[in-house]
Parts: sequence; structure tokens; C-alpha cells
Amino acid sequence: MARFLKNRKILMGKSPGEIHFVGKQKMEQVRIRLMSYNAQNIYESEHESIAPAISAFKTNSLNWLNIDGLHDKAVIEEVGKHFGLSPLVLDDIVNTDQRPKMVEDGNNLIVFLKMLSFNELENRISAEHVTLVLGNNYLISFQEKVGDFFEPIRNRLRQNIGRLRGSTPDYLFYRLFDTIADNYMLCVGLLGEKIEADETHILKNHNKEIVNNIYRHKIEISYLRKAIRPAKEVSTQLKNIETELINSSNDPFFNNLDDLITQTLETVEIYHTMTGDQLNMYNTNINNSANDVMKVLTIFAAIFIPLTFIAGIYGTNFDYLPELHYRYSYFIMLGVMFILALLMLWFFRRKRWL
Amino acid sequence: MARFLKNRKILMGKSPGEIHFVGKQKMEQVRIRLMSYNAQNIYESEHESIAPAISAFKTNSLNWLNIDGLHDKAVIEEVGKHFGLSPLVLDDIVNTDQRPKMVEDGNNLIVFLKMLSFNELENRISAEHVTLVLGNNYLISFQEKVGDFFEPIRNRLRQNIGRLRGSTPDYLFYRLFDTIADNYMLCVGLLGEKIEADETHILKNHNKEIVNNIYRHKIEISYLRKAIRPAKEVSTQLKNIETELINSSNDPFFNNLDDLITQTLETVEIYHTMTGDQLNMYNTNINNSANDVMKVLTIFAAIFIPLTFIAGIYGTNFDYLPELHYRYSYFIMLGVMFILALLMLWFFRRKRWL
Amino acid sequence: MARFLKNRKILMGKSPGEIHFVGKQKMEQVRIRLMSYNAQNIYESEHESIAPAISAFKTNSLNWLNIDGLHDKAVIEEVGKHFGLSPLVLDDIVNTDQRPKMVEDGNNLIVFLKMLSFNELENRISAEHVTLVLGNNYLISFQEKVGDFFEPIRNRLRQNIGRLRGSTPDYLFYRLFDTIADNYMLCVGLLGEKIEADETHILKNHNKEIVNNIYRHKIEISYLRKAIRPAKEVSTQLKNIETELINSSNDPFFNNLDDLITQTLETVEIYHTMTGDQLNMYNTNINNSANDVMKVLTIFAAIFIPLTFIAGIYGTNFDYLPELHYRYSYFIMLGVMFILALLMLWFFRRKRWL
Amino acid sequence: MARFLKNRKILMGKSPGEIHFVGKQKMEQVRIRLMSYNAQNIYESEHESIAPAISAFKTNSLNWLNIDGLHDKAVIEEVGKHFGLSPLVLDDIVNTDQRPKMVEDGNNLIVFLKMLSFNELENRISAEHVTLVLGNNYLISFQEKVGDFFEPIRNRLRQNIGRLRGSTPDYLFYRLFDTIADNYMLCVGLLGEKIEADETHILKNHNKEIVNNIYRHKIEISYLRKAIRPAKEVSTQLKNIETELINSSNDPFFNNLDDLITQTLETVEIYHTMTGDQLNMYNTNINNSANDVMKVLTIFAAIFIPLTFIAGIYGTNFDYLPELHYRYSYFIMLGVMFILALLMLWFFRRKRWL
Amino acid sequence: MARFLKNRKILMGKSPGEIHFVGKQKMEQVRIRLMSYNAQNIYESEHESIAPAISAFKTNSLNWLNIDGLHDKAVIEEVGKHFGLSPLVLDDIVNTDQRPKMVEDGNNLIVFLKMLSFNELENRISAEHVTLVLGNNYLISFQEKVGDFFEPIRNRLRQNIGRLRGSTPDYLFYRLFDTIADNYMLCVGLLGEKIEADETHILKNHNKEIVNNIYRHKIEISYLRKAIRPAKEVSTQLKNIETELINSSNDPFFNNLDDLITQTLETVEIYHTMTGDQLNMYNTNINNSANDVMKVLTIFAAIFIPLTFIAGIYGTNFDYLPELHYRYSYFIMLGVMFILALLMLWFFRRKRWL
Repeated sequence: MARFLKNRKILMGKSPGEIHFVGKQKMEQVRIRLMSYNAQNIYESEHESIAPAISAFKTNSLNWLNIDGLHDKAVIEEVGKHFGLSPLVLDDIVNTDQRPKMVEDGNNLIVFLKMLSFNELENRISAEHVTLVLGNNYLISFQEKVGDFFEPIRNRLRQNIGRLRGSTPDYLFYRLFDTIADNYMLCVGLLGEKIEADETHILKNHNKEIVNNIYRHKIEISYLRKAIRPAKEVSTQLKNIETELINSSNDPFFNNLDDLITQTLETVEIYHTMTGDQLNMYNTNINNSANDVMKVLTIFAAIFIPLTFIAGIYGTNFDYLPELHYRYSYFIMLGVMFILALLMLWFFRRKRWL
Repeated sequence: MARFLKNRKILMGKSPGEIHFVGKQKMEQVRIRLMSYNAQNIYESEHESIAPAISAFKTNSLNWLNIDGLHDKAVIEEVGKHFGLSPLVLDDIVNTDQRPKMVEDGNNLIVFLKMLSFNELENRISAEHVTLVLGNNYLISFQEKVGDFFEPIRNRLRQNIGRLRGSTPDYLFYRLFDTIADNYMLCVGLLGEKIEADETHILKNHNKEIVNNIYRHKIEISYLRKAIRPAKEVSTQLKNIETELINSSNDPFFNNLDDLITQTLETVEIYHTMTGDQLNMYNTNINNSANDVMKVLTIFAAIFIPLTFIAGIYGTNFDYLPELHYRYSYFIMLGVMFILALLMLWFFRRKRWL
Repeated sequence: MARFLKNRKILMGKSPGEIHFVGKQKMEQVRIRLMSYNAQNIYESEHESIAPAISAFKTNSLNWLNIDGLHDKAVIEEVGKHFGLSPLVLDDIVNTDQRPKMVEDGNNLIVFLKMLSFNELENRISAEHVTLVLGNNYLISFQEKVGDFFEPIRNRLRQNIGRLRGSTPDYLFYRLFDTIADNYMLCVGLLGEKIEADETHILKNHNKEIVNNIYRHKIEISYLRKAIRPAKEVSTQLKNIETELINSSNDPFFNNLDDLITQTLETVEIYHTMTGDQLNMYNTNINNSANDVMKVLTIFAAIFIPLTFIAGIYGTNFDYLPELHYRYSYFIMLGVMFILALLMLWFFRRKRWL
Repeated sequence: MARFLKNRKILMGKSPGEIHFVGKQKMEQVRIRLMSYNAQNIYESEHESIAPAISAFKTNSLNWLNIDGLHDKAVIEEVGKHFGLSPLVLDDIVNTDQRPKMVEDGNNLIVFLKMLSFNELENRISAEHVTLVLGNNYLISFQEKVGDFFEPIRNRLRQNIGRLRGSTPDYLFYRLFDTIADNYMLCVGLLGEKIEADETHILKNHNKEIVNNIYRHKIEISYLRKAIRPAKEVSTQLKNIETELINSSNDPFFNNLDDLITQTLETVEIYHTMTGDQLNMYNTNINNSANDVMKVLTIFAAIFIPLTFIAGIYGTNFDYLPELHYRYSYFIMLGVMFILALLMLWFFRRKRWL
Repeated sequence: MARFLKNRKILMGKSPGEIHFVGKQKMEQVRIRLMSYNAQNIYESEHESIAPAISAFKTNSLNWLNIDGLHDKAVIEEVGKHFGLSPLVLDDIVNTDQRPKMVEDGNNLIVFLKMLSFNELENRISAEHVTLVLGNNYLISFQEKVGDFFEPIRNRLRQNIGRLRGSTPDYLFYRLFDTIADNYMLCVGLLGEKIEADETHILKNHNKEIVNNIYRHKIEISYLRKAIRPAKEVSTQLKNIETELINSSNDPFFNNLDDLITQTLETVEIYHTMTGDQLNMYNTNINNSANDVMKVLTIFAAIFIPLTFIAGIYGTNFDYLPELHYRYSYFIMLGVMFILALLMLWFFRRKRWL
């Protein structure tokens, strides 16, 4: 299956807004969790369906509804109905191939992102589709599976660390996006370490494993870029957006976020160039090595082939071959051979092959 | 015939707007089909010429006129006369080489596109010229041949699935464009799968077929890009256009469409880079392999050529060659040879060729 | 002489507007032809100098003055005086190195272009400097030599085909530019066919001619690009220009023209990339072939060199070499050799060299 | 540790504005130095903590507070409280990975930069994080360690050379930034000299050291670019900024600064291209050399292998081998061999291998 | 010394506007020449210092002050004082590393440029720093040494050729800039000829000199680009500038100038690409040649090594080797060898190596 385009089996002629989950189902049942909190109180609850979750919303509180699992059409549609999300948006929420983007829909601000994680064993980045819906007193997050990326945020809420508990939904929204962006940085860093680690191997010895590594790294870098570039577009839009959903007092945070993603992208570009340079280096080293091999071959061949030829001449069985019968012929031959070999060595020395 | 420029035999000095069909005629007779529908009723009819088709138009209905086959000048001109299309536009309709673009002409909005299809056997993308003409209560579509790309839309109309039946012509217009764009995605996906499939072959074994594959893929990617890039321009124009023909309530659909094509183009770019990387990888692997071959050759040559030389010396027939007459000469020679061979092996070992 | 910069011997310190023809004189005498026409009548005449030609201008008619040959300073200056062209413009008219551009000067709109032609035998694009001067009731065209590029237009005028006879000078102006642009397309197409034709040669067999071809094609593509890119700038300027010399009713034609040149440029870019890919392919094929050659060499050497060594041992003339005297020694040796050869073959088989 | 991303161990879920120093602590204790000066007087003092330093501020003077060492959270936070810096800014001050940027915060203008230094022995650029905070009558500079980059400025202040003593804080701000930018130029120049020095080595002889050099230079150039590119953004912003903190009379200085950084960046790009060309050159030279090696091998082999074969034939021990018994056979064989060798030499001469 | 950054030994901490000449002093003493002219009269004088030169200025005349040699700080400062040039500008005048740019300062328009010259023997472009200061009735030009680039202009003034004598300073300003730009074209043309001349050498034979040539050309092209690119920025600024110092009637000249530099830059880009293509071509040719060499080697080896092996077998001295004693053994062996050789030849023929 093509990795850069997961669900190509698009139902031709499908209406826009008909919700079709086309990704790989990553968990059995949809998990619906609600956190309602304000500076004073925090309530956590888990629900089997959307309706009870929504009726558990607290006024005077920020309600964070987290939905893990995108395969249950009914759940998605119910969310859409309650919060006034258009079918197009709902379709994008379940379309795990959806490119990161920002949409304003009714009273909501929706951001589609990719959550990346780096599998160090397989040397492979994998992506998960995440949607954040920001409303006036709620935030809804959709994930493909129960990930623990947002767990640190939840713990901070529970223990009331930092500014989260007393803040507006846009701050939570910022923090979740920021968590995802931090994670980009983390992935780039992990991949980057591997890339830089190859460097010494390339310069020192050159086993073939490294070629595969470099190629794999190139692919992963492309993959990272595909996820982060449009996320940069989103963060820039958020920086400049005029909406009542985002307090202008939080602008510095969104500036900072945009900054972070810019820096990540620039680092990605540097590693991209670096893998290309590594491949070139590797090739140059192979060429160098091939050259050395051939010099060894040529030196051996050029020295011994003529000598063997001379020996061959005196190995012939002609009745009349006068040199054979002189007393010192053999030693003269050896002497000539020795001088020839020295001449060859001097020749190769002068050519700087030795 | 140059593939990237099909009909170069342009009639120099030809007037603009003189209609000359220059493509390859793909069907014998032009086929004219009409669908008139509204929320309540739907009528389908097929006509031999344009005039009766137009007189079959229903008021209070959306009239979708589909014309398959571009070679009949009379048909095209009659359409032009009825709907107020200028000769330049008519010429572009039959010019199968026309680059995708958007034109406003009189009361019509015209979009020229390429419908792509991927022949998996030949590994080859082929393109068909499609024109969509959007008017206030009609939509005219021109195709080179009877394709079934629009068939799913027709079936949905017949069975009244989704929002199509109750919508305005711009929605149908959107749906047809969207079908074409979905198809781009499909082609990219199919080609992408083939490209990604090559990957393992390149890393594992390297037969020569693969070089041809990579080259072919590069060409096909160029071909895709040539069709999709200007389609992106069109979709962006549609997103921003101010016209009475498009309801602002349908704006989200056109945004979504532009999005889809952007994503397709980005994926095309990734595959473009990937094929380049694959060629580099392949070359590196060949170099590696050549290096190995040469090492084997050099090891054999460097070990046995000197030994053969030694044997050659004692194969000479000199009358006076003292070593020949010592009792253990032969075994000493064998011993020396053995030691020499070991020395060579140690030498190559140290050089890490073994 | 540098091809991409024909007349580098610029007279340092020369005043701007001092007219110096620096190209290669392509015809002996300047040829001045006049066509005056309107919907009813057409007059053609040829003149020895400018003054009589201008006095033959008809009012109520469109006067098309065509001047072939740029080397006669007096002719150029007289044209300048009559139509109010500044010395700078006159200098650009005779400067065959002038880059395509558009200038408004007094009551004239002047366009400098390159007329390209493709010599299929030499595989070479050649360019001719063309200037079009559009006035309120006249059009003046300058060419380096008597070309027949504009002949089809003249014939249409004579035979009153199409819209030309009844139109304003800007339409004639458009038609001449369009003829030149059609010609770009034609050149690109012819060169493109040659480029695509090489493709199969590269993939099948690889003689060295092809490298030269690819290189030549690359140069020609650069040459095409150098002429067409600034022509694109001109056509875009014409599309957007506000001048009384161009009727707004002719805008669609200029849009179409800009379109045509855009498409040509895009095709040029594709062929540019393609020639680069072809060179890469060719190199990969050479590498592959070199690899094969070396495998053959290595297999032969690795099999026979050790065997020859063994034979060499038993060719030595030692007095005491016991194996020589056993009855089956010879056959044992042959057997050992056979087994060795089989082992080598198996080894190379396993390495997939056979 | 990945060099292009030093502190990837980001504490996921950390609040923005929680100050975490993540770099490598480069000095034991934070050093706080104050210079208060005006045209008449100058006072220097060193303090153990921030509070006394601030209370030593002089009115009617420019107060330059220099803080070396970023690891002491208390110091940073106290500075923040006194001068109204937001937690986000404070976090950026201690985040040694922070990308160069400009921020306006309250009454301050803050610029984050990288101070580069080139270690000529290791051929390595290293970067230090520097922050400049410009207020209405003070300037605060943060450095990772006690560097002497700003020492020349201090000496000029002490000795009252140039315009510094009588100027406003923005001029000091400019001078510090300019010092950093001069330093970029210096680093580029030092690295550039090394790059240009390699040139002759590449063209003359080719030892393998050079490949590593070229690769190292490429990496260092990337590193330079990563620091200088965003600094260019900052200098351009400063050029265009409208703030009361910068006197418009100092605009030419900031224009000049932007100019300097632009020029530096352009030079960086040239060296970037140059290292790429050097690698290409090196590869071409290796290929050339390999070609020569192989020609030598082939000439030796092609001349002597056939001759050895001939000698081999007459070394066989057939009972009936008539040539062996003719008187001049041996000399005829030698003659034939000589002629064969001459023929081969002539053949290789014609092929221009000799 | 790094060529692309001549005077890296920047005095860290130096005040901006402190004038430090850092280039290589190219002449012993500063030479100050004045030309005062109007349509009627022309006066030329040479002065030892600035003050008398300025007092020799004529009103009602255009005063062209030409200063050759930048190393005398006193001269530069006196010019600055008289014409109101800021220290920053004065510093840029003597800074031979200054990037081309345009500055407006007080009542002057200042342009910094590079005058290029091509040393055909050394194949090397060298640059000289030139400054033009345009005032209301004067023009001051600074050069590093007494060059004769402006001599043709002086002669035209003396002999009153062309429009110069009756024109305003901005026209002289234009003419000097134009002379410099013409010179760019000349340099590009000369270098281009050398580049195009290499072409045939690359395709025909391939000696190693050419690699060095190509590399040198690449460097020189970079050098040209570094000087011309910012000059293009300057010419574009001049085209669009609104200043009283430039008569709008001279606008066409500045348009023309911008045009000329654009064309030069485009040609530079083409040659840049061409040198890259040449290197590729050269490499391909080497690969081709290496391939041929190896084929020759392989053919010789593969034919004669097996034959020598056969001869070796019958050269062994086994007591019992039956074939040796048959009467026709020798001839059978020769026959078998002949057939084997033919088979090999046929094999290589089929592989198209022969």
C-alpha cells in the first residue's frame, strides 16, 4: 500500500460530507472522555456515547471532550449535530489522509494536524490524524487511538500545575497544538541523531548497510516534511487570524508556536540536504576504494605478467634455443626479471600509486 | 510523435477561432445526452444533433448536456451559437492539447481540464481533454470519448442519492470537477504504489528492469504534474472568483476541492523526489557491486599470478638451474607458495576486502 | 564566436541611440513592401526607399509596412523620423542581440521578438530578430531577412480569408505575434520529438552518439528558453496593458496568446528535465554495462588463473617431484581442476553473477 | 547528540514560560557587570545579584547590564520582573536552541542572536546564544559565557573613542549587533579561505583527506547558514521597524547592518555552491585516475597475455610437435612475438591510450 | 587569501564611518582630475588635493571630478565634507569589499559598483570597486586605480561627439554606469566564448586540462554573478526612483540600462548551467571510455587465459599423459584452441562488445 497516500480507494462519486472512515481501525471501540474544569474544580468522566457526555458539560467550566477512535460514524455525526459542524468538516475528521489545515465553521475553529511518532527500532516515522475543535467554552479533540501524547497535559490539569486551570479554551487549544509541535521537534531530533551518527561510519568504513540507512532517512525526512509544512501554514494562519475565539492576550503564545514550527522545518531542510551530501560522500568513498582496488590489481598484473612471459619463453621446448645452454643464463634471467620488477615499481611510484 | 505536445502540426496562419480538431478521433459518432432534473423529476434523452437536444431543455430544471466526441465541427459550432460561446472558446474545446484553464465568456464559466487514467499494464498515464461549461440553468460537458468517469454521478442522479438532485448547477459543476480531481488522486496513488514497490527491489537485488521502471515513473510523474499544476491554478481561481453563477453557500466545497488538488500536487512532488533518490540508490548499489566484483578479481589475480610466475621459473629448461636438482626443492617451492598466499590473504584481510 | 551572445564587440563608449548594425548581414539589399487594405480593397507595392513607401500609405486603410534587412542605417533612421521612434528604439531594432521586450514610444507600441526556426538536419535552433511597431493605422514589421513566416498571413489578406481584412491594426499585430508564438510551439515540438526518440535508444542499446545528442538537445533547450521566457513577459504585459492602440474587444486574443506561450514554456521545462534524466539514465546504463563486463572478466580470470597455476606446478622440471610419476596423477589433476571450476561456478552463481 | 538541535529532550507538557535552561553550562557562576556612562562620566561595577546592580543604575546615563551565564533561573526571573519581560521571552533567553528573532515586549525590544566563532584547528564553527534587550535608558545583554567579543566595545567606552559615549542606547544596541555581524563575516572568511585552499589540492593531487574536508566544510556552511539566515530576517525587521526606541537618525546604521548581513549570506551561498563543485571535481579526478589505471592494466595484459600463450604452446610436451625441431623456430617465434607487441602498441596508440 | 571576501581582517569594534582602506593599494598617489564642460566649453585640470579642485568648479558647467586611488583617508574625508557625504558612505567608498548598492545621502545619489575585467591569459575575472556620486551640477567618480574604462567617454567629451556635452549630470551618470554594464556584457562574452570553445574538446577528445578549465569557468561565473546580481538591483532601483537629480526625460536610458543588465544576468545563468552540463558530459565520456578499456581487457583476457590454460596442461611433465603421444594431438589442440577463440569472439559479438 502506498505510504504517502494511505486510502486511495476513494469512492468515486461519493458525496462530499458523506462520512467514510477509510483508515486502519486502530482500536476496538470509540472512547469518549470528558474533563470539565475551572480554576476551582475539575471533573473527569468517561461515556459510552456522545449525548450523555454533552449533557455532562458544565457551564462556568471549560469542557474538554476527547474522542479516541474515528471509525464510528454515529459518534462523529452526533458531535457534528451538537456543535454545528458541517458534513465536509466531519468527513475531514475521519479522513486520516487529510492534509493539515485550518477551517472556520460556524462558531468553531477547527485544526487538522498530524501527530508524529518515531519508532527508533524500525527507523520509521508514523503519523496519526488529530483534529482539534475550538468552541467558545469547549474544546473537542479527535485521535485515531488512545495515545498518551496529551496525558502530561491531563496530569497538569489534575494537579493544577501552571496556568492551564484558570485559562480560556484557546489556551488549552494552544497547549495541545504546542504539544504536537514539540513532538515534531522531538522526532526531528531523534531522526537527526541517527543521521549525524551515520556520518562517522561513512567517513571511516563503508559497509553497505549505510546506503539503506541513508535512503531510509531520506524517505523519513520527506515524510516529516509532508506533515510539518502544512502545519506551518496552519500556525501562521493562527498567528494572524482575527477571531473572538482567541484572546489577543494569547497572541505571544501563537507567535511562539509559529516560531517553533519554523525552526523545526528549517532543521528538517538541513537534514534533507545532509542526507543528500552523505550519499554523495558514500559514492565518492566507493569510487576511491574502487580506485585503490584497481591499483593493487594493476600493480600485481603489470609486474608479474611480463615476468611470467619471460619464464614462459625459456620453458619452450625448441631443439635450438641457445640461451638455455649457457651456464649463467638462469641467473641472468633472474637478474633481468629483478631489474624489470624494480623498473615497474619505480614507474608506479612516480605515478604515486604506491 | 512527441507525447508532451500531441498536435504540433499547427496550421500556421490559421485564424484563432477557426475550429480544427487536431487530436485522435476516439469514437465514430458524436453522442449527445441530456439529463434534465430537479428535486422531483428527472428526464434522460439522447439526441442525434444539438438543436433537438436544446429544445428538450426543461425550465425549472437543471439541464446537463453531455457531448462525447470532439471531431464534429458542426456540433461544436451549434453549441457555441446557442450558448454564446466565442470562437476562441470553441477552438479550445476541440484542441485536445489545450492547457487546463478557466475562462469567463458571456454568461458562462468555462473550465478546461484533463481527465487522467492510469493503465497499470503499460505503466502509463493517459489524458483526455474535458470541458465543463457552467451556465445559469445548464451545464455542458465535453469529453473526447464515452468515458464512464461521470457514470457514478449519473447513477446518483437517477437514484436521487445525496444532495445532487436538489442543488444548483454550480454544485453539479463542483461534483464533476471533484470527480476529476479524485481521479488525479487515484492515479497518483496507483503510480505511487508502483514506485514504492520498486524500493525493496532496489535495496535487495538489482536487475536492469528497474532502471527502466524508474525512468518510466519519472516521465509519468512529469506527465501528471503537467496536467495537475494548471488544474491547481483553476481550482484556486474558482475558490476566489466572484460570479453569480456560483452560490457563496457552495464556497466550502470549492475550498475543499482546492485543498484536494494541493494535496495531490504535494504528493506528486514527493514521488518526483523519490524517483530521483531511487536512481541515485540504484547507482550506488551498482557501484558497490562493481567494487565487490573487482575485489574478487583482484584477490584471485594477486594471489595466483605471482605463484604462477614462480612455477613458470622452474618450468624453464635451462641446462644449469641448480634448484631443480635439490631433493626438497619442490616441497620448498610449495611451502614458499603457501606462505606467499597466506601473506596476500592477510594483506587483503587488513585492507578489509575479505 | 559565443553563440549565446552574438555581438559582444560592443563599441565601448558608443552613445545610446547611435545605430550600429552588429549582426550578420543576411541579405544584400533592404526590401520594403507595403500592403494597404481594408474590408473592400487591398493594394500591394514594393519600394526602393522609405519615403515613397510612406507616401503610398492609404488613409481609411490599414497600412502594413514590412522591412526585410536591418543593415541599412538610412532606412531605419528614416522610419524613425516618420513615425516618431526614439534613437534608443531604432538601436534596438537593428541590435540582433536585443532581448525580447515591449516598449511604448510616442504613439507607437513596439515589440521586439525572436523568430525561431529549427534546422532538423543540424539539430539546431536558429533565431532571427523581429520587431513589430504598432501605430494607430499602420503596422511596421522588421525582419533580418526575407522570411516566409508571415507569407500565410499575406495570402489570407490577399484572398480575404478570416477576419483579418475587416479588423484594426492591433488584430494584425496579434496575428503576427501569434504566428511567431505558434512557431515556438512548432520548434519545441520538433525538438521534443527528437528528444523522445532518443529515449528508446538509451534504454535499448547505448552507442556514444546519443551522449552528444543529449548534450546538443540540452543546449538547444537552453536556447529556446532564452528566447521564449522574455516573450512570455511581453505577452503578459500585452494582456494587461492599457492603451488606445489595442481594442478591449481583442483582449481574449491576447489572453489566448499569453496562454499559448505559457504552455510552450512549460513544455520546454519538461523537456529540459527530461534531457537531464536521459543523461542520468545513460550513465546508469553504462555503469550497468561496465559491471557486466567486469563480471565476465572476473569469472574467466577467477576460474582459469588458479587452474593454470596448478598446471604450472606440474610443468616444473624438478628432479624430485613425486606426483609426476604416479600413474593416475594426470587424471587426478584434471579431476581436481574440474571440481575447482565447478566450485567457482557455484560461487559466482550464489553471488548472482551468472 | 544531534548538533543541529541541541536540547531535544524537551519536557513534553511543560508550560510555556517555565524557565528551563537546557544547554551546556559553560561557566560556574553567573557574572553580572554594569557600565553606566554618558558623555562625561563612566562607572563600571560588578554585582553578585541583580537587585544591587539595578539599584546602581544611573539616571541621565545609559546603563549597560551584561549578564554572562544563563543557568541561574533566579537571576533571569529577577531581570524579567524588573524590566517587564514576559515569561515566554525569559524562556527564549535561556533556551540556547532558540532561533534568532526579534520580539517587542512591553517597553523593550528584544533580539535573539547567535554569536559564532570558528575553531581553526577543528575546522568547526561553534555558536553561542546571545540576547540583547533594548529599553529606553538601558541595554541588557545575555551571553552563555564570558566572551570577549564585546570587549573592544567596552574599551572604546572606557577610553571614550568614537561616538559611543554620547549616543543613545539604540546606538550601543546597533554596535553590539554589528559586532556580532562582523563576526559572521570573519567566520565566513576563515572558512572560505580553507575552502579555497582545498581547491589547488583537488586539482593537483588527490589524497582522501580532502573528501572529508569538503564534507566537513559543507556541514559547517549549513551551520553558518542556519545562524545567519534568521539574523538577516532580524536585521531587515530592524531596518523597517517603527519604534520609539530607535532614533530615525540612526536608520543609516541599521541599513548598513542589513547590508552587511546580506553580503555575508550571499558569500555563504557562493561557498555552498563551491563545495558542491569541489566534490564533483574530486569525483571527476578519481574517475580520470581510475581510467588511467585501467588503461595501464589493459595495455600490459593485452600485450603479454597473447605472447605468454604462444610461449605456452611451445612449452607443451607433445611427442610430435614439428616446429620445435626446425633450427630457426625459436627466433621466428621471438620475431612473431615482437611484431605482435608492436601491433598492439600501434593499436593502443591509435586509440590514444598511449 | 579568500577571494570572495577580500578584507576579512575587519577591525572588530571599529566605529561605523571610521574610514579604513582595507584593499590592496593599487597606485602610489591619489590622482584627482576635473573636467568642467557645457555645450560650449570644456576645461580639464589635474590637482594635488581636493580643495583646489573644488574651487576650480565652474558654475553653468557640469563638473566631473574623478578620483583614482582610495587609500588616502584625507582626500576622501575632504570630499565628504564638501559634498555632505556621511561617514558611512565614505567608509563604503573605500571599502573595496562593499556590495554594489544605491544610497541617497543628503543631496547626492550614490551608486557603488564593481568594474570587471577579464584577463584572458589567466582565464580570470578581476573586479575593481567604483563609486559614482551624482549631485545637482557635479558628478564624482572614485576608482581603485587609473583605469581607462572611462577614457572613451572623456574623448567623446573632448571631441564633443554625441549628446554628452549638452546634457545634465544624470546623463553622464547614466553613461558611466552604462559603460560599466557594457563591460559586464563584454566579460560574459569573453568567458562565454571560452566555455563554448571547450564544448568541442569535451565531445571529441578528453584530456584532463579540460576538467580544470570547466572548474575555473564555474568559479569565474560565480564571481561574475556576485558582482552583477546586486548591480541589477541597483539598475532596477534607478529605473523606479523618484528624485530631482534624474530628469524624467532620461528614463528611457535607465530602462535600457536595466534591460542590458537583465540580459547579461540571464546569459550568466545560461553559462552557469552550461558548465554544469559540461562537467556531466565529461564524466559520461570518461565512463564510456573506461567501459571501452575494460571491454578490450576482458576480451583479451577471456580469449587467451583459457587457451594458455590448455597449453599449460600439456606442458606438465606427468609420466603418464596419454594425449602427448598421439601423432595428431598437437594439431587437435591447436584446432580446439582455434574453435574456442572463435566461440569467444562470437560470444562478445553477440554481446555487442565488438
